[in-house]
Amino acid sequence: MADQPPTGADLAALLRVKPGSRARLARVDPNETFGHAKKAAVPLMDRSLQRLSDFQERLYASKPGALLILLQGMDTSGKDGTIKHVMRAYNPQGVSITSFGVPSDEERGHDFLWRHHHATPLRGWVGIHNRSHYESVLIERVEELAPAKVWHGRYDRINEWEAGLSAEGTRIVKFMLHIDLDEQRARLQARLTDPTKQWKFNVDDLKVRARWDGYMGAYDDALTRCSTADSPWYVIPANRKWFRNLAVAEILCTVMDEMKLRFPDRTEELKGVVIE
Amino acid sequence: MADQPPTGADLAALLRVKPGSRARLARVDPNETFGHAKKAAVPLMDRSLQRLSDFQERLYASKPGALLILLQGMDTSGKDGTIKHVMRAYNPQGVSITSFGVPSDEERGHDFLWRHHHATPLRGWVGIHNRSHYESVLIERVEELAPAKVWHGRYDRINEWEAGLSAEGTRIVKFMLHIDLDEQRARLQARLTDPTKQWKFNVDDLKVRARWDGYMGAYDDALTRCSTADSPWYVIPANRKWFRNLAVAEILCTVMDEMKLRFPDRTEELKGVVIE
Repeated sequence: MADQPPTGADLAALLRVKPGSRARLARVDPNETFGHAKKAAVPLMDRSLQRLSDFQERLYASKPGALLILLQGMDTSGKDGTIKHVMRAYNPQGVSITSFGVPSDEERGHDFLWRHHHATPLRGWVGIHNRSHYESVLIERVEELAPAKVWHGRYDRINEWEAGLSAEGTRIVKFMLHIDLDEQRARLQARLTDPTKQWKFNVDDLKVRARWDGYMGAYDDALTRCSTADSPWYVIPANRKWFRNLAVAEILCTVMDEMKLRFPDRTEELKGVVIE
Repeated sequence: MADQPPTGADLAALLRVKPGSRARLARVDPNETFGHAKKAAVPLMDRSLQRLSDFQERLYASKPGALLILLQGMDTSGKDGTIKHVMRAYNPQGVSITSFGVPSDEERGHDFLWRHHHATPLRGWVGIHNRSHYESVLIERVEELAPAKVWHGRYDRINEWEAGLSAEGTRIVKFMLHIDLDEQRARLQARLTDPTKQWKFNVDDLKVRARWDGYMGAYDDALTRCSTADSPWYVIPANRKWFRNLAVAEILCTVMDEMKLRFPDRTEELKGVVIE
């Protein structure tokens, strides 16, 4: 019998940045699929989405804590697509999504974690951050929006803050959607020419693209310094959208399964209640 | 050839409370399906959900305004189920859902529309209000939480506020999910005994159930006084969940089709852009 391609915890282990190890995106192939094939992935995906839906109902019902999902990646890496195709598994009532763009004056007036803390999910909810506090050591570092002495200290601040959230019951999962320069060119080109995609095109994305290597270095440092046992980073090969979706769904299933979510048992409490 | 059961604009017209007419819930059969059958509704529903998804992408891309969907109904009438089964058609990034419960001290410290205005959707977004400002002329009236002279004035305040939102570009659609006492009994009973539903059981629902007729009278007045050409009320026969979902989806398709949503054409603006 042939080996089955890895799923669940096995796939999660392959994609996790091991705490204490040095992350090197240059060594991760964005085309990797670990033997999965597009067609055979369809039923796996259906099963995972159904499981995510079931897990979420238990989370919402029993409220033991919250789940916070971070999505990072270069422009066109598929953050929006992952939300559309994977996060749709969740009942929208129970999910809060926050997209972080350029900070407002009020946000800039506070410390860099302020707006992100404000956007953390309620107990029982799934929170999705489309971009995140990691931009403070990515774009702010590469574009020199913050001086080195400022962003140098932020890795520790981030780890401390995430450890606090975890200790208070918020499970954190961090995804870096990994594409390469060729794939980005093709996707940007599609946005230029496809009338149903033109609205997504942003000329500023070209400036960021020009500093690709700088961003990869900044990602390597963030993944290296901030992948912890409680709040691990996962690097998702994302040139193939179907594999990206499958990998994210499988990892989320693994994480939510570990949360041991149960419906609350109220049989005793409700004993004797009569409906007229 | 047999007549086809009504869909789209025809079904919407049947369920709309005609502005200026007197609403009488007692004359609406909660079991009504207008000749639709559960099995034949499946492909209709799939088509409608796909259309809603497409409409929303155009709304999000072009941002001509927003869509605000209100869900009202007695306990167990299916507000949550409608969100789960119909609103799931929408990409969660672009949907904001607000559930209104007992007001907080801060909310009570403001006028009754304050918290609802705060929760209106961004341009380009779909906002869903699970319960709404109408509770101020429903539960607050029936449970005598507000004096008569206060809630009497609120119908006009509501109409003025909704007219203002409409004028500023927010399309408003209001659904009253209509079940009867027998159906509510069966659903409450299921929540009492099914371990996967017990978490939804709230003993206070029994007190509200005991004043059913009072609530129906308050709904009749709200539907009568606040179904306007710009912000109509729809009464959805909701004893059968599949018909409730189909009717809501068909009406939303009709409304979003009327919004004439288009992707923005940026061909001129993007002419000459080259991706290195």
